[in-house]
Amino acid sequence: MMDLDDLGLKAHNQSRADSHQQAFARLADTLTDAGADVEALLSRIQAFQVAIPSWALGTGGTRFGRFPGGGEPRSLEEKIADVGVLHALNRNSGAISLHIPWDIPTDPAAVRQLASHYGLVFDAVNSNTFQDQPDQAESYKFGSLCHADPVVRAQAVAHNLEVIQHGLALGSQALTVWLADGSSFPGQLNFRKAFARTLESMKEIYAGLPSGWQMFVEYKAFEPNFYSMVVQDWGSALLFTQKLGPQAKVLVDLGHHLPNANIEQIVALLMAEGKLGGFHFNDSKYGDDDLTVGAIKPYQLFLIFCELVYGMQQTGAQPLAWMIDASHNLKDPLEDLLQSVEAMLLAYAQALLVDQAKLEMAREANDVVMAQELLQGAFRTDLRPLLAEARRRAGGAIAPLTAFREAKVRAQLIRERGHKVLATGL
Amino acid sequence: MMDLDDLGLKAHNQSRADSHQQAFARLADTLTDAGADVEALLSRIQAFQVAIPSWALGTGGTRFGRFPGGGEPRSLEEKIADVGVLHALNRNSGAISLHIPWDIPTDPAAVRQLASHYGLVFDAVNSNTFQDQPDQAESYKFGSLCHADPVVRAQAVAHNLEVIQHGLALGSQALTVWLADGSSFPGQLNFRKAFARTLESMKEIYAGLPSGWQMFVEYKAFEPNFYSMVVQDWGSALLFTQKLGPQAKVLVDLGHHLPNANIEQIVALLMAEGKLGGFHFNDSKYGDDDLTVGAIKPYQLFLIFCELVYGMQQTGAQPLAWMIDASHNLKDPLEDLLQSVEAMLLAYAQALLVDQAKLEMAREANDVVMAQELLQGAFRTDLRPLLAEARRRAGGAIAPLTAFREAKVRAQLIRERGHKVLATGL
Amino acid sequence: MMDLDDLGLKAHNQSRADSHQQAFARLADTLTDAGADVEALLSRIQAFQVAIPSWALGTGGTRFGRFPGGGEPRSLEEKIADVGVLHALNRNSGAISLHIPWDIPTDPAAVRQLASHYGLVFDAVNSNTFQDQPDQAESYKFGSLCHADPVVRAQAVAHNLEVIQHGLALGSQALTVWLADGSSFPGQLNFRKAFARTLESMKEIYAGLPSGWQMFVEYKAFEPNFYSMVVQDWGSALLFTQKLGPQAKVLVDLGHHLPNANIEQIVALLMAEGKLGGFHFNDSKYGDDDLTVGAIKPYQLFLIFCELVYGMQQTGAQPLAWMIDASHNLKDPLEDLLQSVEAMLLAYAQALLVDQAKLEMAREANDVVMAQELLQGAFRTDLRPLLAEARRRAGGAIAPLTAFREAKVRAQLIRERGHKVLATGL
Amino acid sequence: MMDLDDLGLKAHNQSRADSHQQAFARLADTLTDAGADVEALLSRIQAFQVAIPSWALGTGGTRFGRFPGGGEPRSLEEKIADVGVLHALNRNSGAISLHIPWDIPTDPAAVRQLASHYGLVFDAVNSNTFQDQPDQAESYKFGSLCHADPVVRAQAVAHNLEVIQHGLALGSQALTVWLADGSSFPGQLNFRKAFARTLESMKEIYAGLPSGWQMFVEYKAFEPNFYSMVVQDWGSALLFTQKLGPQAKVLVDLGHHLPNANIEQIVALLMAEGKLGGFHFNDSKYGDDDLTVGAIKPYQLFLIFCELVYGMQQTGAQPLAWMIDASHNLKDPLEDLLQSVEAMLLAYAQALLVDQAKLEMAREANDVVMAQELLQGAFRTDLRPLLAEARRRAGGAIAPLTAFREAKVRAQLIRERGHKVLATGL
Repeated sequence: MMDLDDLGLKAHNQSRADSHQQAFARLADTLTDAGADVEALLSRIQAFQVAIPSWALGTGGTRFGRFPGGGEPRSLEEKIADVGVLHALNRNSGAISLHIPWDIPTDPAAVRQLASHYGLVFDAVNSNTFQDQPDQAESYKFGSLCHADPVVRAQAVAHNLEVIQHGLALGSQALTVWLADGSSFPGQLNFRKAFARTLESMKEIYAGLPSGWQMFVEYKAFEPNFYSMVVQDWGSALLFTQKLGPQAKVLVDLGHHLPNANIEQIVALLMAEGKLGGFHFNDSKYGDDDLTVGAIKPYQLFLIFCELVYGMQQTGAQPLAWMIDASHNLKDPLEDLLQSVEAMLLAYAQALLVDQAKLEMAREANDVVMAQELLQGAFRTDLRPLLAEARRRAGGAIAPLTAFREAKVRAQLIRERGHKVLATGL
Repeated sequence: MMDLDDLGLKAHNQSRADSHQQAFARLADTLTDAGADVEALLSRIQAFQVAIPSWALGTGGTRFGRFPGGGEPRSLEEKIADVGVLHALNRNSGAISLHIPWDIPTDPAAVRQLASHYGLVFDAVNSNTFQDQPDQAESYKFGSLCHADPVVRAQAVAHNLEVIQHGLALGSQALTVWLADGSSFPGQLNFRKAFARTLESMKEIYAGLPSGWQMFVEYKAFEPNFYSMVVQDWGSALLFTQKLGPQAKVLVDLGHHLPNANIEQIVALLMAEGKLGGFHFNDSKYGDDDLTVGAIKPYQLFLIFCELVYGMQQTGAQPLAWMIDASHNLKDPLEDLLQSVEAMLLAYAQALLVDQAKLEMAREANDVVMAQELLQGAFRTDLRPLLAEARRRAGGAIAPLTAFREAKVRAQLIRERGHKVLATGL
Repeated sequence: MMDLDDLGLKAHNQSRADSHQQAFARLADTLTDAGADVEALLSRIQAFQVAIPSWALGTGGTRFGRFPGGGEPRSLEEKIADVGVLHALNRNSGAISLHIPWDIPTDPAAVRQLASHYGLVFDAVNSNTFQDQPDQAESYKFGSLCHADPVVRAQAVAHNLEVIQHGLALGSQALTVWLADGSSFPGQLNFRKAFARTLESMKEIYAGLPSGWQMFVEYKAFEPNFYSMVVQDWGSALLFTQKLGPQAKVLVDLGHHLPNANIEQIVALLMAEGKLGGFHFNDSKYGDDDLTVGAIKPYQLFLIFCELVYGMQQTGAQPLAWMIDASHNLKDPLEDLLQSVEAMLLAYAQALLVDQAKLEMAREANDVVMAQELLQGAFRTDLRPLLAEARRRAGGAIAPLTAFREAKVRAQLIRERGHKVLATGL
Repeated sequence: MMDLDDLGLKAHNQSRADSHQQAFARLADTLTDAGADVEALLSRIQAFQVAIPSWALGTGGTRFGRFPGGGEPRSLEEKIADVGVLHALNRNSGAISLHIPWDIPTDPAAVRQLASHYGLVFDAVNSNTFQDQPDQAESYKFGSLCHADPVVRAQAVAHNLEVIQHGLALGSQALTVWLADGSSFPGQLNFRKAFARTLESMKEIYAGLPSGWQMFVEYKAFEPNFYSMVVQDWGSALLFTQKLGPQAKVLVDLGHHLPNANIEQIVALLMAEGKLGGFHFNDSKYGDDDLTVGAIKPYQLFLIFCELVYGMQQTGAQPLAWMIDASHNLKDPLEDLLQSVEAMLLAYAQALLVDQAKLEMAREANDVVMAQELLQGAFRTDLRPLLAEARRRAGGAIAPLTAFREAKVRAQLIRERGHKVLATGL
């Protein structure tokens, strides 16, 4: 198991101390001149924690193939260790989100202790009714919670209830339900029955929700079904959660929309309704491409964070489940995740920098030019030294990706785990 | 004013009687062999009435220009006469939908009488807060019902209330509210405030709704605002109508969606919620292209009608406002409307032909192949002779477009009204 | 191996003879009345042959999972037998397209003889440089013909040359090159170098092309790379083929375009340039969904066939490689292929029905309404009895799908081959 | 006419001198530390000149309406004065692009002198065959260069030749041909004939091109035609320019693509072919939204500039026509243009900052993570003080938009020109 001391953080930070301090000092002066409270920003950045999904620690693939890297985690314990490395480097990856049945904890107490050793907590647990497991009685080929056959629906409900139990044992407080249910051909599905059956199934799951828990209903426009999805957009997801009750919330995955959708508006409306529960961050150009957060549309990411920051201000402490959900087909998964967390933090910090009072004044005056200036002014500000300082103070690396490479983490993992191992996941 | 006797329907039908009877007899035999009730189909087809929007009787245009035809209606009376011609030809265009302030009736009683002369009733009335009228106190440049300034909102509310009064005088029973409100730049609008203000304004309009009336909330993904629209999709529209009350329903315009949206599923869900109120039919490839119904995606049109037919069966007599909303940039508007009504009727008749019992059996058995066969079997059936027979029996033309051309209606309208007139509209 | 006599075609056709003859007689009368030459149509329909790809005979999947059916072909011989069944049923599936290395023929002479037994010829052979094979020296993770490393490029070139040899041995006359090459992240690829390297590699393959052969360059907008594809659209593909020479042509796959692309126009332009070489038919709503041909957009399919029919008239006998390229995730692959071939034949026959002379007259007169009437008139004509008659005369089934089910082919294949076998493919 | 001394630039710059110098000094240190040559960057930024289109100086609109501002230019002379104001403020708007017939210069010598007074030259001239002018013999309703009627084509060719003459008189060296030609309905157009006729017409225009001139062929995916455009994408545009000759080049407008198109790859390929001639900058979310440059997708803008910078390095001095083509529906046109030029300069400067050598090394090593780091490192750098310094040294404003507002330019223009004037344009 990777020893965090081997990451060489002290040496890394010492070698960069001078140049970092200079860059940070310049930025701090600039921000202070502009009226920002640098210390407050630093503490909010430090408090921001992103959950890492257990299935994103191995190489992903497409239906055309998969090109594994090496040193992938072979067990839940090794997945936790990988997230531990990330968190040690950036101090913003302090949670892990499990996927059942890929990550069933056989000894929950030991798993919790291991996570705690790395400073990690368990975020939402995820059920899987989009694949058939080898020992499974009924097939999900034609759906799970929406299936025409009540026996299949019952199996899928039971699976979700079991996932809750695993989550309880680990200290999770939310269940994420993503359904592949839908149809690939016109006529295949009775839309009304599919909705009603799914609702009925969800109600059974909801009834099994422990107090204090939330149930996240995730929507997706298409894939793996190519004509319709039962929970196809935020409108459907909201409708389900309205009918389920106050513990049901909507989960937004950035890649699950039709082309050109205005996601930030959806975020704003869901927050206004008190129905935004969680977030799967990634980036995409065409569909659910599951690319590194911020790799394609960093400005959209910033605009989403503007709504999140504003929405949280409006509603007080609405705890959101922030998670990365990407697929690392080409990049080293850990490097990819470091880039993703950095992009999220940057967008978050820039959103914090927006002068809300001035923005509202410009909006009320229909000063469209000024409203854009205010947003782009924040977005164009280079806050990387601020993030580095927040990490440094929290005991992380000034430059996590560089530190990761300097410490030759991947080579060490390959030595430990081998070259040809495959982590569970997509 | 066009004399309907000049349409020469008798001669037209006589000259086609033999070939039509032969074609109809062949089809009737085929349908009867397949177990269909031809007479029942005929009477349902005859009962189907499409509303013609008053603004679709003149040449439309794009922001790049407008190429007027000739003989466009110069007044509300001439618009009614044009719809009268359509209805005389196809017997399925028995309603007209007015747009205020383009069509303010100065003498409602006379206007009702004129419409009645042509066998027409008045469908939903439409308000307009997307343009500034010459004498208007406040501008809608930055929105109407969502505007930051309460004075502008009040003006827009008052306009809608006035539109209701015009509608009342004519016998309409519904108000359609389509809002161009939105933003073209990130930052311009506070999404939450825009929603809340629009809701507040809508509530004032809703409060002025006569009993028996409905208020249709129409959504649109983009244009004329190019970053966000306040009522951007069915999810938002549903949310507004939920908060307004039972007289508020959603209106679906086929061209108002993001690329690749599954509109038939939206229709099904809205009907299941009892919240589908009306429909604007047209066709499009890219955006709100406002092309002739069925010109681009006739199969999608059929699938939508399958949901409408099924939904009406499920919920009993849910009266829907069927309307065409197209823009005739290149075609003669009346010819375009004849093609649109024909395409709608064809899709409707094909949807009636679907064997619902077999379809449900295939669905319950996950027989995807058979479900497709059943839908495509209906879609591939050539029902044009059936439509012709329904029209013939109702006193219309066997071939409305041909009759229109044979009667040289456009030439006559140009002689009457001139070449360079411009009807109000887009 | 499936005995074609077991299909029970004679009994099937006899039991349907009367109703078919009646339906066909009615249609033939209608067509003859309208001036069509029914016998000429029948012979053109019979002559139309669609190639079946060897990889479409098993259950497909998505990155989220694969739900196998049963009785999938375990060998090239069994794949040929499956296509033999299709061809026996519809007489329009007289070719097979192989994919190397999934279908390497160990005894080409025997394979040719087997195919010949079923009346099949070998269409284009397909290379595969989008996956790594177990014994492969170099990885295609970062591209093949475009790879930065000349050693990888050389391996990919050698593979293509080897595929040609396999094709030669079987009597193929074309090589299809589809590249997954591209990038998933901005910055990953030097677009200019990637193009130049790919061109250089293609030139080496082109140099190894036997005389009489064609090389098809296939393009794709996205997937499996999610930021850029080296051959991303018809413009790029055309550029490559221009630089390669007269034996290089473009291959169009219907699912490989950006949303809303006008594919029929691309077909028309490629044919006008003499550069359309082949076609992969399927249908889709979102991306490369690989659904049954005609399942989503049958009118688009018809419009494409209108261009193909017109283009072949203009240029004389331009032999095109027509192929289906679909993925059967939910349907029985053989049933899906029967539906696909039927949809293609229907669109082809309807396109043959278009009155080209009248259409050109309408176009020259800018009579947009009439041009639409002419196309939709052909599309709305129900030509299914014509297809059935063509099949019947050629010795096929009046209703291939029904015959397939009546003969319980799948049950027989499962008995023969087992339930859990997996064919190679996607 | 606006006196440039009224802009109060000196006072503006003096009041900001200290804070600017501090910010610039910090940035210069940071850049120098990172190995950049600040002086070289400054001189390249100063050399970068963007052409302002004459039609973008007034309020734009959509087909739904137009909400004019005030003080719009009433004549070509006033348009030149407006561009003069922009150029005085930012020193990067030193060219103007005219649109005929909206801006026919009656006294070219005087117009040239006026432009020269403001330091402006004349960029590409633009023809207009997408609208009918009042006195025009033939209508472009059904196309211009592609029209079925040779008389209409001849008129459109003659217009283009006349535009060249106007351009010659003013010192332009390029003609931009954007065609609205296309079709809104399947069947309307014979794609092959439309292409051939357009080519024939273009050849006649090309034949009239003065030596040293270029002809830019602009493509567009859709609008104002909604089914097909004759020059629909870069593939078609390239094909036309190949057939025309070396003086013909492609012009790319950012808003003229299908959803999700990778524009930067198109730019790279056109430059590699030596066929990129010019650029229309704007931004968009849905279609040709014509929004402020950089307002929606600033990272895409940066990626395009990366290709432009790299392409110009590769091919030596390939002079490109950089132009803004936006429509200012909501913003003050001059403020919008100041924002657009700033966004372009920022993207250009960031692209100059990319370490090409390191980037190529990362690419050759398939180090995808590092390639992204290098691009995003440049993009995340806040270069606004560098742009301000370049402007200051060139005699412009440190903060052009602020200076524009401080000088109350719009109020002055309204006083001069009135409130209700409408500039020609869209």
